[in-house]
Amino acid sequence: METKRLGKQTIRLIFSPSISYFASVGGNMEGQGPLATGFDLISEDSYFGTKSWENAESAMLKKCFDLVVAKSGITADCLDYIFSGDLLNQCVGSEFAVKDSGVPLFGLYGACSTMAESLSLAAMTIDGGFANTVCAMTSSHFCSAERQFRLPLAYGGQRSPTAQWTATAAGALILTSEGEGPFATHITTGKIVDAGICDAANMGAAMAPAALETICTHLDDTGRDPNYYDMIVTGDLGVIGHEILLELALKKGIDLSAVCSDCGMMLYDRSKQDVHAGASGCGCSASVLAGYLLPKLRKKEINRLLFAATGALMSPTTSLQGESILGICHAVAIENTKNVL
Amino acid sequence: METKRLGKQTIRLIFSPSISYFASVGGNMEGQGPLATGFDLISEDSYFGTKSWENAESAMLKKCFDLVVAKSGITADCLDYIFSGDLLNQCVGSEFAVKDSGVPLFGLYGACSTMAESLSLAAMTIDGGFANTVCAMTSSHFCSAERQFRLPLAYGGQRSPTAQWTATAAGALILTSEGEGPFATHITTGKIVDAGICDAANMGAAMAPAALETICTHLDDTGRDPNYYDMIVTGDLGVIGHEILLELALKKGIDLSAVCSDCGMMLYDRSKQDVHAGASGCGCSASVLAGYLLPKLRKKEINRLLFAATGALMSPTTSLQGESILGICHAVAIENTKNVL
Repeated sequence: METKRLGKQTIRLIFSPSISYFASVGGNMEGQGPLATGFDLISEDSYFGTKSWENAESAMLKKCFDLVVAKSGITADCLDYIFSGDLLNQCVGSEFAVKDSGVPLFGLYGACSTMAESLSLAAMTIDGGFANTVCAMTSSHFCSAERQFRLPLAYGGQRSPTAQWTATAAGALILTSEGEGPFATHITTGKIVDAGICDAANMGAAMAPAALETICTHLDDTGRDPNYYDMIVTGDLGVIGHEILLELALKKGIDLSAVCSDCGMMLYDRSKQDVHAGASGCGCSASVLAGYLLPKLRKKEINRLLFAATGALMSPTTSLQGESILGICHAVAIENTKNVL
Repeated sequence: METKRLGKQTIRLIFSPSISYFASVGGNMEGQGPLATGFDLISEDSYFGTKSWENAESAMLKKCFDLVVAKSGITADCLDYIFSGDLLNQCVGSEFAVKDSGVPLFGLYGACSTMAESLSLAAMTIDGGFANTVCAMTSSHFCSAERQFRLPLAYGGQRSPTAQWTATAAGALILTSEGEGPFATHITTGKIVDAGICDAANMGAAMAPAALETICTHLDDTGRDPNYYDMIVTGDLGVIGHEILLELALKKGIDLSAVCSDCGMMLYDRSKQDVHAGASGCGCSASVLAGYLLPKLRKKEINRLLFAATGALMSPTTSLQGESILGICHAVAIENTKNVL
């Protein structure tokens, strides 16, 4: 059997599964941002017709799932697997979203790296011959996240300048064994990187070293130059994390400045929207991927993307106990050309 | 390419990855139970040398990980992936356990079904040619779980007769592409089943219908009779869930009584240990698998096991909001004979 491994952390997907369908949903804030026109649905109602923020997140993700299934022209029960997770404790956002779908579920927890994690595993199940049609998705909701991770909204706490705004957004992809692409071609799975950051209002700093580690390993493993890619897009480092990443990369002799951008800096217009260091949350990179980057690939405006979603594995409990916020970053190369068989 | 799918939810692992090494760790209660002699380590110290229950869980899981790596004769950095998750919010049990391992991590959330979920994905990455050596593991800790899901221990709350005792235990497996077995041969991935149970002290009832669904689907998909297996072992239904499962199966014309048992009924001696309906927690099925079932397979006391770990996807938040506790069950067939290529 041909080996699919490249270097220590990367695999080459022999059959290059196609990311054939994608959908994105956002809330009010996302609707006022520069990427709004790419979203399939913007809801003015942050509750998405429900009575709690947790139900709202599930309803939003279910809407996104229904949209991507509708685009695919199949019914949900034709899906072989769903890979999903979210920020809510016990991943209830995902579970309640798919509970009536009748599809086998692999539940994930990768914090804001979940879109790349779910995409990685979905692509592997197809490339490995275990599935033909797989959904990868995730979500986050500003209101459910704030009260779980920081303070209840009603408290009206002051936000620090390093803080990021958890996106109220969801993204869902359907990968297929046959299709017109864009194609998932390589996967670099991240290790945990402990940068020693304990400030839950500075997640960019906690995640930047993990992004560096995964991106550099990906380039090493594949023998690619950063400029092989039209875009290298990190998950949700925000302005501060992005700057740290560029600086750390330069110290290693790698200049990412021409090619690297960040979903957390793309989702909102920081000159008009009061989001401090940018966007975050699983839904940030998921919706930017589904609502902006994949359409750009499909229109051939770009042809080679390295999607490197970052996660701050932040627990209020361990943070209160003085532990640091661990970072992780998973990367998937998405290209308009398949790997040569 | 030969299709690996059988029916709707099952895959046949062509190369039958070997579960070559396994380790289990338990706490005090587990040390007094009937399976204690099979554990690699029993700790009298519930804190595992740390100062918080969350740290204790991580330290326990790390110990278990170190033990299985030591048995394998390789160093941790030779592992291609770790698949792990646990009950703690944001899966911090797993994350802090492996943060210094230097191994790419796929974080999972499947509640008490996590051992079967991690084993499924680990086996698929090997069978699909993406990896040679993969660790699958999980843990739970009575004290960290009680305070997160129910009441602080110091409150001294009365436990209901239907309640189960979250195991303080961990199990870790290393799967390899070559090896002497036992072998993972088939995987049936579960769907969410909503039985409408809202009582967080009756998880067996919430999970039994999911176990039924997955076991019946597995038998259908593979064309196997229940008695093909020497044992069908559910995760942690406990006495009440186990009875419900047998009854529901009988209603479908399937008699599981001769072959079906439950990790939640095996870990403790209910005549001497005050655990009410039995054991639960990710660590329950993980440690029973690693400390009892896999050794039994290796000694050829049994040759065909269906390991069907069950999960109650229970969120204190959504439970307080009146939502039901969703159930899921993932099954892996583990046999002493590989699938015919």
